[in-house]
Amino acid sequence: MKRIAYGGDYNPEQWPEEVWDRDYEAFELAGIDTLTVGVFAWAHLQPAEDRYDFDVLDAVVERAAAEGRRIVLATPTGAMPPWLAHAYPNACRVDFEGRRHVYGQRHNACPSDPDFRRLSVALAGRLARRYGDNPAVVAWHVGNEYGGACWCPACGAAFHDWLRKRYGGLDRLNHAWNTTFWSHTFTDWEQVPPPNALSEHWRGPNHTAFQGITLDYRRFMSDALLGGFVAEKAAIREHVADTPVTTNFMGLYQPVDYHRWAPHLDFASWDNYPPEDPSPVRTAARMALAHGLIRGLKGGKPFWVMEQTPSTTASRDVNAVKRPGVLRLWSWQSVAHGADAVLYFQMRHSRGACEKYHGAVLDHAGRTDTRVFREVAALGAEFTRVGDAVLGARTPARVALLVDWDSWWAVEMSDGPNRNVRYVDVLAAYHRALWQANVPLDVVPVTADLGGYDVVVAPVLHMVKDDLAERVWDLVDRGGSFLATALSGRVDEDDNAFLADVPGPFAGLFGLRVDETDAQRPDVVNPVALGEVEHDARHVFEVIVPEPSTEVLGTYGADFYAGTPAVTRAARGRGSAWYVGTLLDDPGVAAVVRSVLDEHGLAGPLADVPDVEVAERVTAEGARHLFLLNHGGSQVTVPCPADGVDLLRGTAHAAGDDLELAPAAVVLLRCQ
Amino acid sequence: MKRIAYGGDYNPEQWPEEVWDRDYEAFELAGIDTLTVGVFAWAHLQPAEDRYDFDVLDAVVERAAAEGRRIVLATPTGAMPPWLAHAYPNACRVDFEGRRHVYGQRHNACPSDPDFRRLSVALAGRLARRYGDNPAVVAWHVGNEYGGACWCPACGAAFHDWLRKRYGGLDRLNHAWNTTFWSHTFTDWEQVPPPNALSEHWRGPNHTAFQGITLDYRRFMSDALLGGFVAEKAAIREHVADTPVTTNFMGLYQPVDYHRWAPHLDFASWDNYPPEDPSPVRTAARMALAHGLIRGLKGGKPFWVMEQTPSTTASRDVNAVKRPGVLRLWSWQSVAHGADAVLYFQMRHSRGACEKYHGAVLDHAGRTDTRVFREVAALGAEFTRVGDAVLGARTPARVALLVDWDSWWAVEMSDGPNRNVRYVDVLAAYHRALWQANVPLDVVPVTADLGGYDVVVAPVLHMVKDDLAERVWDLVDRGGSFLATALSGRVDEDDNAFLADVPGPFAGLFGLRVDETDAQRPDVVNPVALGEVEHDARHVFEVIVPEPSTEVLGTYGADFYAGTPAVTRAARGRGSAWYVGTLLDDPGVAAVVRSVLDEHGLAGPLADVPDVEVAERVTAEGARHLFLLNHGGSQVTVPCPADGVDLLRGTAHAAGDDLELAPAAVVLLRCQ
Amino acid sequence: MKRIAYGGDYNPEQWPEEVWDRDYEAFELAGIDTLTVGVFAWAHLQPAEDRYDFDVLDAVVERAAAEGRRIVLATPTGAMPPWLAHAYPNACRVDFEGRRHVYGQRHNACPSDPDFRRLSVALAGRLARRYGDNPAVVAWHVGNEYGGACWCPACGAAFHDWLRKRYGGLDRLNHAWNTTFWSHTFTDWEQVPPPNALSEHWRGPNHTAFQGITLDYRRFMSDALLGGFVAEKAAIREHVADTPVTTNFMGLYQPVDYHRWAPHLDFASWDNYPPEDPSPVRTAARMALAHGLIRGLKGGKPFWVMEQTPSTTASRDVNAVKRPGVLRLWSWQSVAHGADAVLYFQMRHSRGACEKYHGAVLDHAGRTDTRVFREVAALGAEFTRVGDAVLGARTPARVALLVDWDSWWAVEMSDGPNRNVRYVDVLAAYHRALWQANVPLDVVPVTADLGGYDVVVAPVLHMVKDDLAERVWDLVDRGGSFLATALSGRVDEDDNAFLADVPGPFAGLFGLRVDETDAQRPDVVNPVALGEVEHDARHVFEVIVPEPSTEVLGTYGADFYAGTPAVTRAARGRGSAWYVGTLLDDPGVAAVVRSVLDEHGLAGPLADVPDVEVAERVTAEGARHLFLLNHGGSQVTVPCPADGVDLLRGTAHAAGDDLELAPAAVVLLRCQ
Repeated sequence: MKRIAYGGDYNPEQWPEEVWDRDYEAFELAGIDTLTVGVFAWAHLQPAEDRYDFDVLDAVVERAAAEGRRIVLATPTGAMPPWLAHAYPNACRVDFEGRRHVYGQRHNACPSDPDFRRLSVALAGRLARRYGDNPAVVAWHVGNEYGGACWCPACGAAFHDWLRKRYGGLDRLNHAWNTTFWSHTFTDWEQVPPPNALSEHWRGPNHTAFQGITLDYRRFMSDALLGGFVAEKAAIREHVADTPVTTNFMGLYQPVDYHRWAPHLDFASWDNYPPEDPSPVRTAARMALAHGLIRGLKGGKPFWVMEQTPSTTASRDVNAVKRPGVLRLWSWQSVAHGADAVLYFQMRHSRGACEKYHGAVLDHAGRTDTRVFREVAALGAEFTRVGDAVLGARTPARVALLVDWDSWWAVEMSDGPNRNVRYVDVLAAYHRALWQANVPLDVVPVTADLGGYDVVVAPVLHMVKDDLAERVWDLVDRGGSFLATALSGRVDEDDNAFLADVPGPFAGLFGLRVDETDAQRPDVVNPVALGEVEHDARHVFEVIVPEPSTEVLGTYGADFYAGTPAVTRAARGRGSAWYVGTLLDDPGVAAVVRSVLDEHGLAGPLADVPDVEVAERVTAEGARHLFLLNHGGSQVTVPCPADGVDLLRGTAHAAGDDLELAPAAVVLLRCQ
Repeated sequence: MKRIAYGGDYNPEQWPEEVWDRDYEAFELAGIDTLTVGVFAWAHLQPAEDRYDFDVLDAVVERAAAEGRRIVLATPTGAMPPWLAHAYPNACRVDFEGRRHVYGQRHNACPSDPDFRRLSVALAGRLARRYGDNPAVVAWHVGNEYGGACWCPACGAAFHDWLRKRYGGLDRLNHAWNTTFWSHTFTDWEQVPPPNALSEHWRGPNHTAFQGITLDYRRFMSDALLGGFVAEKAAIREHVADTPVTTNFMGLYQPVDYHRWAPHLDFASWDNYPPEDPSPVRTAARMALAHGLIRGLKGGKPFWVMEQTPSTTASRDVNAVKRPGVLRLWSWQSVAHGADAVLYFQMRHSRGACEKYHGAVLDHAGRTDTRVFREVAALGAEFTRVGDAVLGARTPARVALLVDWDSWWAVEMSDGPNRNVRYVDVLAAYHRALWQANVPLDVVPVTADLGGYDVVVAPVLHMVKDDLAERVWDLVDRGGSFLATALSGRVDEDDNAFLADVPGPFAGLFGLRVDETDAQRPDVVNPVALGEVEHDARHVFEVIVPEPSTEVLGTYGADFYAGTPAVTRAARGRGSAWYVGTLLDDPGVAAVVRSVLDEHGLAGPLADVPDVEVAERVTAEGARHLFLLNHGGSQVTVPCPADGVDLLRGTAHAAGDDLELAPAAVVLLRCQ
Repeated sequence: MKRIAYGGDYNPEQWPEEVWDRDYEAFELAGIDTLTVGVFAWAHLQPAEDRYDFDVLDAVVERAAAEGRRIVLATPTGAMPPWLAHAYPNACRVDFEGRRHVYGQRHNACPSDPDFRRLSVALAGRLARRYGDNPAVVAWHVGNEYGGACWCPACGAAFHDWLRKRYGGLDRLNHAWNTTFWSHTFTDWEQVPPPNALSEHWRGPNHTAFQGITLDYRRFMSDALLGGFVAEKAAIREHVADTPVTTNFMGLYQPVDYHRWAPHLDFASWDNYPPEDPSPVRTAARMALAHGLIRGLKGGKPFWVMEQTPSTTASRDVNAVKRPGVLRLWSWQSVAHGADAVLYFQMRHSRGACEKYHGAVLDHAGRTDTRVFREVAALGAEFTRVGDAVLGARTPARVALLVDWDSWWAVEMSDGPNRNVRYVDVLAAYHRALWQANVPLDVVPVTADLGGYDVVVAPVLHMVKDDLAERVWDLVDRGGSFLATALSGRVDEDDNAFLADVPGPFAGLFGLRVDETDAQRPDVVNPVALGEVEHDARHVFEVIVPEPSTEVLGTYGADFYAGTPAVTRAARGRGSAWYVGTLLDDPGVAAVVRSVLDEHGLAGPLADVPDVEVAERVTAEGARHLFLLNHGGSQVTVPCPADGVDLLRGTAHAAGDDLELAPAAVVLLRCQ
């Protein structure tokens, strides 16, 4: 039956085969139809360089297939076996502090080491040859949670090659990095060190003497890691024609630029472990942002939640259990935002080591009467009930939020004006305002086609590169609205300042120039009046000189720039360009964002009901599905936003009817 | 005369011989009869590998003996001389960050380095041959404050040997460490790295990918350090038949498992520098716990306080002076808990380097009219007055508190549920409740014979190994009470989870299973009602499913598990098993502990008088001595708990008579 | 025209030559007459070891000279070029953690590396030969902001040489370092390791097992860095007879002992970037202290402010803009304290890398209508107006504040009594009290001639060396007052405790001994009554036993030493010796300091007007100039302290007339 894929990581090689029977009894109870196998299985698949052993994996795959489960087959290369590190010490990374590591942990192979590359690709190829034509295998999953970085000599040499390709010659490199500053003119590629604590850095990865060098190293390292994925994928493709290949991303993960990776994946997937936040509503918004980012990687196509925990994490200082109903609520939220698969890490608790307390569908005793199992099984039953109703459905959006790894990197490694500005904090604040408005939203890279949007929001668009400025002008010219914030338009793609008024290529668009940028400690608040309401602004305060025609929407209330513009709007072409020259609090951001949306009548359903999320998926046949999710702690009564049938309860509702939403309630309304 | 040994570390080699006369005049004034000599004297005892020079030590020993002082002769191997490190660089350790150290500091010799071992043992042997038959030498003191750890290649190889002995083969090792997780299956002993920041660790020594590896390395390192002690002791024993040999422990010192060491010491001794705590009463309890631990190392035999400061420490950020009377109060507390010696570090202030401000009996000016010297001398006079009254006396106890280094290590390196749980905090909380009840108490390892106890309290008994579960069942069967807490019964001796209901081997005993374990930030309080009183619970909240017959004594007041059991009691055999599924505040712990004690009528004298400690020692002849100590800041009047004579003031008191206890008061009541 | 030099760092090699025209147009507008060129230009001056290229610098110098600007010619050796580090890896430092760095950043050449020395000296010589007789070059500026430290083997060997010179033999070294402690007796110079994290240190540079070793290493390293300056200066002097040579200091910069350097500079200069402080008045006092320190380096001769930012810094976490008027106020404050030059870093914003947001006279767009440029230009006009009025003028002072790097180092690396005591905090507190009193003040080393002073204030004079004690006795004998604080008189020049009563050589002078030193956490306050007023004392509390004749001015109000002396005064000879045995709050310090000043009638003008600074310069001809500076946020009206003419506004004022001082107001009164 076609339905939302449900299941997760399954590592039966870690327990005796007699337990497998009980595993499948439990899967049956819980409606689990999809199993990810093979992750981190390298040591038993290849016990020595010259010896392979597929007996256990054969048994696992055969059993799963025989039981009718869909298999996600992972290459096990996210963790190397001891023999490999022992034979090839250079397969281990050199860390930011300049230290060569020895064997241990996982996710730590040097991406430039030829032996690791050779061995991992060979194993991926063997797996593909062996299992590639098994019809139960519905997807390939390469490696695991790619990330981190290496600063070894091999990476240094690969970095030189990468630079040669990017710049052609040292003159262009020296210009790009502005090396006349501090006498850094490089006269030989070999002189360029990997930027770390032994060379250009102090106080950690964000403090560098040369932002350009560090920025390029991050781009290079993202590409170097991608090289491993691409090579394994190619090895798989030698034996597997069509089965899609993916790897599991980690949402807003700074070290890897997923936009550079996305073209190489057949579909996107990610692991949903939201960062700790005492507010459930903020947490829900944060997950929605990440779902949006992932959906945006492949042009809006459905994605997979490759991992989420059934209950607790283990790696945090404090690991709370998921409250009753939260597993269901969050899982449906994933689906609401485009997930066609909801998978858990993990099917059964690990016996020992650092994840033995990580949540699992089955606990150490293997019980099926725990609270966790009961909730897992109930959700499985719901997925069965809903079937393929929303599979493949998309979310048409007229609003876009821009995300840019380069800007993220650049603004956080910048010396000045303010180290307390975190890119994701500002991004998430603007996202929350859009999310609260329940407007269908695309989260896209700065390279995205903006042709289909009415509103584009670009928080901290620090770097402006390629033809972005023109595309934004086009958007505004044809009647769209563009909204940007403080610290935008500052640097070009090499992180060199524009030798022009701030905000650089956008100064004319916004009709202003920033005369100077003040920064203050987090406890300093400057009130910004928007209409009759004052909002708190913090951290960064741009002193703006507007053009006469520019509309001043908000002014600072304090300091020597009191009364000068903080928020402006310029009419341009048939559209408008909005600028917020400071970091506003949530209500302030919401006020601006809602004004922009209102220009286009784009606020979504129940936009004024706090805590209630409404998301939409529309099937290829045009069937509209609204998901209503109550993330708040109280029951609320809301007007049903459309005529429809709740697929979860089977009840019919007319638009405007009262809908009772208990805490953690989910309604899946197929609209009529 | 037989009396409590009184004196301390004496390093006259650091000052001119003419000062020695003034030293002894001061010793005479202060009743000082015991001197520890030779600590850290290696460089002048052996100025080069092929040259020894005992002239100064001869003079020191001769003078001390001639003056009638008892000598504790130390081997100087706690600090190596520069020539040694220079000739044998591998005698220096490799630290947790993987860096080989060079010469400096102390307590830092690699325990696996053959040259250091050879040289330290040779010197110990020479000292024993030279001074072994000097009747003034009453004890040998090997090294100093053993601790720390090394991760060098020699330790790596020694670790492999240790593992071979423990596991026999790699299959058993791989099973013990659960290496199928993250592809860690070892196929050669050489592949096993010392677990540190370059291999399995991140964020420091408690964050490891493989708890089993790190746990074994801690056990190994404790044994490796012990190897140095054992080898030096053996060298001494070649020349010294009977004089007891010890080394100075450091109380609740996590890196070294004193229970593994205890059999090798002839008597236990320790250095009493309590951790900073703004509450004098908590500090007093903390010292009582450590005294108990040390006394428990040798089956309850008297121990020595080998060091305490006469006034200030120097190594802390803030080093307060001991308030008036505190030196006396704490010294008598030591005796009350079984010390037969009370020694200071140090007799005279060091002139330079990092301990020049560490407290001393004599200050830099050598005055005997300082407040510190006056208090030292007054205490010396009291020790003279009391003579041998309590020497050798023991403390019979029917209550035991279990301490387990393995559980301590395991729970604090565990990923999940909560990094904020500190083993010693919970241990100390339960100890404080017992201490406040003034009940005679043994602090014993989990291997102890429980046959003599009515009540056994086991906070955070995370690991359950060997036959412990059976011995606890026996205790309860024959009428005893067993009390355990959250996070108990979780792992076996390899730190693998029991594949059973939590708390593993004890689930049946307590009549419950833990369905899930919630964890919350330190500021989250869940009120737990015990009878009519609510207490604060924090950090960890086990959601308990009790058997029908299990008595629920306390329930959670908040969160989704409000109303479910937090504290339970199960009647088993003739006894009872108590379980506290969370971390209660002090009054909560006290309420539970007092209930358990009350089942056996075991609360001690003045159990309800805050701040007043009562401890007991009984001589071989049966003479009972009660020590009353007022750790509070106010004078209190208490009923005398027995007929007796205060040996300090010579006054007689009848049971029930009013006793006035000023702040810092001490009464030593010989009961009649 | 002779006037205050005005301008700053100018690096036109970083932008195209066509921009230079616009630079000079702006300089003209702003009255900029002085340009520092060549800083960090090594890579383009010497693109390879065997190739020099002076074309660009020739053009820069010719243009500046032709435009009538004064040139400060810098040797570019503060930043090495990539080819140098690549060819000579040992030119890079080994850091405190024992790691050899590779190429990156700046200010990081090993001072003991022979290749770096050879190459840097050769380049300095070439520059001197080429530009030495250019009359536009008014000063030479060697290197840049010397600082940091290296722990490489070459430095280790140089340290051994330095020690050999200092101690002659190992016996004296062992005595100086008190090496019998912890078995550290060195028997070969080679055994002495550079003290860092791999040898004597833990928890960073201030935690050392042997204070004596670390102290000597700091002295050595300060000398080693000085060696680089001296060698470059000598190379310049081979070609340049008279032009003065300097380097830019950094105020109260702990790693380098500027008193050891001062004799080698022809005039003193420094970079004025005051540490962040929310209080503008405290910031003003802090800058005044640093100006005083720098002026004191060359016996009171005028100095240069070599750098200050026109607006923001970039390197801090939060980089605020200078408020309107602050650039002018602070610049005039510099002049008031003896600066004859006020220079900015930098003339034009850097395009890229870590200083691209550092403030500049010209922004990235090159505008001359920014707020910053307008303020710069207005100040330039004022400097033109004032001309040479105060050039070369001095500040006669009868009060001295002692500063001692050795004491600073020693007290902060001391184990005990209290790590929370920061030397500069106490120094600054006493300075603030003197500054608030507007008394002309010299800030001088402990080696200074005290013959001309009536009052000498010595906060935390931890170390007493050479003939200091006698000179202080002389001061008091002839009628002067000496004021010292807690933690004074503790150690000799090797950091060994005086074997005498505390405060060592001063105990007799102050008429007291410190019986013990209590230390408490920062939140513990002990009230100290001075007359009728109670002040807060914190951190350190010396328990003082006074001689009968010693006057007790203040007593502790709490703890077991309540009622004992905290502040005392002893009449000695014709003078007085004041002692403050604790760390008082600002009002407490002010009360004591004012009492001392009042003994000599030395309080300055407007001493009781908060926030208003009055400073004085007297020309060689005896013309007295008073600078009045309002650092507060409010306008105040004050009586004019003398008859005179305000050179800035051209207005005449009689003594006692009302002067209105707006916030940030500056009055420069030439007295009549």
